[in-house]
Amino acid sequence: MKELTVDLKDKGYPIFIGSGLLEQKDILVKYIKSRQVVVVTNTTIAPLYLDKLVKSLDGFQIEVVVLPDGEQYKNLEQVTKVFDCLLENKFSRNATLIALGGGVIGDMGGFAASCYQRGIPFIQIPTTVLAQVDSSVGGKTGVNHPLGKNMIGAFYQPKCVIADMDVLDTLDDRQLIAGIAEIIKYGLIRDLAFFEWLEENIALLLARDKKAFAYVIEKSCINKAEVVAEDEFESGVRATLNLGHTFGHAIETGMGYGKYLHGEAVSIGIGYAADLSNRMGWITTDDVDRILALLKRAGLPVEPPKELKVEQFIDLMAVDKKNVDGNIRLILLESIGQATLPISIEQKYIEQTLMNYAGK
Amino acid sequence: MKELTVDLKDKGYPIFIGSGLLEQKDILVKYIKSRQVVVVTNTTIAPLYLDKLVKSLDGFQIEVVVLPDGEQYKNLEQVTKVFDCLLENKFSRNATLIALGGGVIGDMGGFAASCYQRGIPFIQIPTTVLAQVDSSVGGKTGVNHPLGKNMIGAFYQPKCVIADMDVLDTLDDRQLIAGIAEIIKYGLIRDLAFFEWLEENIALLLARDKKAFAYVIEKSCINKAEVVAEDEFESGVRATLNLGHTFGHAIETGMGYGKYLHGEAVSIGIGYAADLSNRMGWITTDDVDRILALLKRAGLPVEPPKELKVEQFIDLMAVDKKNVDGNIRLILLESIGQATLPISIEQKYIEQTLMNYAGK
Repeated sequence: MKELTVDLKDKGYPIFIGSGLLEQKDILVKYIKSRQVVVVTNTTIAPLYLDKLVKSLDGFQIEVVVLPDGEQYKNLEQVTKVFDCLLENKFSRNATLIALGGGVIGDMGGFAASCYQRGIPFIQIPTTVLAQVDSSVGGKTGVNHPLGKNMIGAFYQPKCVIADMDVLDTLDDRQLIAGIAEIIKYGLIRDLAFFEWLEENIALLLARDKKAFAYVIEKSCINKAEVVAEDEFESGVRATLNLGHTFGHAIETGMGYGKYLHGEAVSIGIGYAADLSNRMGWITTDDVDRILALLKRAGLPVEPPKELKVEQFIDLMAVDKKNVDGNIRLILLESIGQATLPISIEQKYIEQTLMNYAGK
Repeated sequence: MKELTVDLKDKGYPIFIGSGLLEQKDILVKYIKSRQVVVVTNTTIAPLYLDKLVKSLDGFQIEVVVLPDGEQYKNLEQVTKVFDCLLENKFSRNATLIALGGGVIGDMGGFAASCYQRGIPFIQIPTTVLAQVDSSVGGKTGVNHPLGKNMIGAFYQPKCVIADMDVLDTLDDRQLIAGIAEIIKYGLIRDLAFFEWLEENIALLLARDKKAFAYVIEKSCINKAEVVAEDEFESGVRATLNLGHTFGHAIETGMGYGKYLHGEAVSIGIGYAADLSNRMGWITTDDVDRILALLKRAGLPVEPPKELKVEQFIDLMAVDKKNVDGNIRLILLESIGQATLPISIEQKYIEQTLMNYAGK
């Protein structure tokens, strides 16, 4: 087992990465401070791992909230089910919430924990690649609004993150591959050597090689933890983690939540961002090809959905947390391994990318 | 105009108390960092003060959300209307939310600000005595759940609080008097001299004497600011501000939100707390009489609603943010001017108070 740290002073916490962690009661128990524990999970994960987790929590008063699976259910209505359960069982402010699932469950569970009685402790147990390498770390929680992705939420840090790699065994290929988009992202924004490693070893990930996955999960978490420690509330460098996300969120919202997995939309968004970065004269066409090649080799989509027209796309991008006074700001690439901070781009250049980028 | 400070380091902010503040554009503008401003108010306050505020905000892009008036509307559904407005108008993370209203609007507006894009700046303009002396200061925001008062929320500090005393001119007597309950509370929990001043001068407040109100608002805000600065997240002394609130919240929830004003329920709750404090041997029956006498002279209710039976009351009190592992903890009085920290009381004593206290 590896142990990393997210260094946020009194809010700092460990990330545990390894096999068989769900069965290790001593890890869990160390981070639970009262008898009352609520597990938030979904209909896909519950049959697979809930029993195992509950067994490790022998002796606690455990309540379980099983939510429907999918981005389309990441909303306030579902979060309310968690509040209902907590109140029906008279859970106190020292109760602990465990989010057992992928990014959607982690975001909703974390948000519920941040709001219940103005904040109760919570633990992330991510069960997808995407959640293990990205969303479970850093304290971004929240839900979608019909008009914008992740528009309602809180910065709220967990007490620990437990990434049990065994759960990847039951993850389907589509989910597994979607997570690789965020892994590639770390290489692109701040770690050229990691990007090159991925170019050389992507086949190992697709073959579900455990050692390779252990390496990329650790490497991704180190990158994420460093960025978050530097800028918890995203006033600067943390925004670089959003490479491809402004385009990606527009796709997720515009196409209807759940149509694309988050990682798939981010992959397409990274393609857009690469195209626009090239258009601004920062990266070469060879760089763009190299980026698209790796995404494609990973099995990730890079072609934009044909349904979204330029005007609608711009409209969707106008709702983004990086914007200022309604002006679109983007994360682009200065080079492979170096992202820009949020930058205002003249709309005509964005439109050129939206019109011309085809993911080819 | 008086200016106080809530000393919370980088989250610190000023409280302005005075007349004609709504017209003073320079105060407002100093705390608004972008063009986009949303005003959240209610159907009672909007006709009275919205125009005046909007006039002071000349030059900004202003959107207004008018919510229904009353504790029964303090819920997630109403907060969602704020999110809808913000997103329909593509408001960015640097937009400012102004809560113009009493405690309900301040709590909901602040919570909406805390959640929108994981947090946007907000300003409190309290328009009731209760909001000016208590709820607008200290960053407690949130909404009610059918099973518990203020159960969903966030600690989220405003950029400033603007208490324009002129708005009290249009406040009806019932609202004005309800606010006095929280003023008396400060005397009871930590300021004997202030309690004695109130005993001598309560008639001035009931006569709406401006100078007397200026004094009690300032005095209350100083007390509140000191407590909040010492314990922002209520891990200790801040809980003393909850004197009477565990009983009061049970009344509000049990009788249906809106039936009692918050201050009225707190007044009855203070009576219960005084009775129980006496039962525990801490304050004398003379003290209890003295407390009840002041509440009654202020025109506040002290008699419990007959509809709530002991068992139901206990059940409602079992949902409270001070509880630990589901055990009821209360703020009681060691003397007039000195509250206890949250303390576990054997249920039989609570039951004795619930059975015997009649507010007489």
